[in-house]
Amino acid sequence: MKEFPLSKVYRFIEPGPVILLSTFNGQKNNVMTLSYCMVIDDSVPLFAVSMGAWDFSFDVLLSERECVVSIPADDMLEKTVDIGNCTGADTDKFDKFDLTTVKAAKVKAPLIKECPVNLECIIEDDSLLNRYNLIILRVVKAWCSQEHFRKIHHNGDGTFTVDSDPIDMKSRMTRWPEYIS
Amino acid sequence: MKEFPLSKVYRFIEPGPVILLSTFNGQKNNVMTLSYCMVIDDSVPLFAVSMGAWDFSFDVLLSERECVVSIPADDMLEKTVDIGNCTGADTDKFDKFDLTTVKAAKVKAPLIKECPVNLECIIEDDSLLNRYNLIILRVVKAWCSQEHFRKIHHNGDGTFTVDSDPIDMKSRMTRWPEYIS
Repeated sequence: MKEFPLSKVYRFIEPGPVILLSTFNGQKNNVMTLSYCMVIDDSVPLFAVSMGAWDFSFDVLLSERECVVSIPADDMLEKTVDIGNCTGADTDKFDKFDLTTVKAAKVKAPLIKECPVNLECIIEDDSLLNRYNLIILRVVKAWCSQEHFRKIHHNGDGTFTVDSDPIDMKSRMTRWPEYIS
Repeated sequence: MKEFPLSKVYRFIEPGPVILLSTFNGQKNNVMTLSYCMVIDDSVPLFAVSMGAWDFSFDVLLSERECVVSIPADDMLEKTVDIGNCTGADTDKFDKFDLTTVKAAKVKAPLIKECPVNLECIIEDDSLLNRYNLIILRVVKAWCSQEHFRKIHHNGDGTFTVDSDPIDMKSRMTRWPEYIS
């Protein structure tokens, strides 16, 4: 995994992939699956995730104020779904799903070696939790082993899709030259 | 297009597709492309979009307080990109891109016949605009001609992907039975 510029991390969130969010509670790691997330602003490395007290990771994230967001490729589809269908309350998911941890640079939660993208994040703002279950995360360090890969998307009904190969439309992006460089 | 239950509209936003947002300013229709959007809560038909004053549709959306969000399929990939690369300030995009308008039931902006999903929306909350460019939209009427179709995703760099066929993982969704019914 190589370090990736923070100015371009929005490119991993914008396509709307299913993500993995890992926390460390001081004793052990946990990981959850989620897909409610969005870019807040492409000029700063901020994105929003929707979480709530029903998630086992919620209290840890709020108390530790940091996490790692990893983006799995399609070869992890089954694992990604299964991680979202058990709970850290009674399961060591890193062990159960044979995830390889890599030490992060700025946060205590681990990177996941099997994921092409790993984003070390801190909580920027949790004032929108009560109204909208929203937490704004700031990426403080980004790692990438592969820039384009088949991301996973959830249709919200237990069916998923994976990406096609990328289709190059750069020549049509005449109004947005800053995005294609 | 058939009416679609509001309780399930999150299923069209959760996978992170590129969307079209149409407005009517009292005289003419306009449409823009965007892909910063997320489900706020699957139990209510709310979702967030990120927009700003740099978008020609912004003032109209804020003054009219309503819009239509249409979700294009992959057969509209080129059109969807091109709609995002010209401006309603000098272009009648519905005319230029040969979009067929259908009268909406609850808002003045039009549905787009060529899109499998059309969501009539009102502004629920624009108090997050200054801080995060976020507008919370509430779907008040939903229309669907096809539930599963190849949505478009933007990698944020002028390359796009389209969905694979849906992959059925319902049997693994043991903790979330409410999502698969």
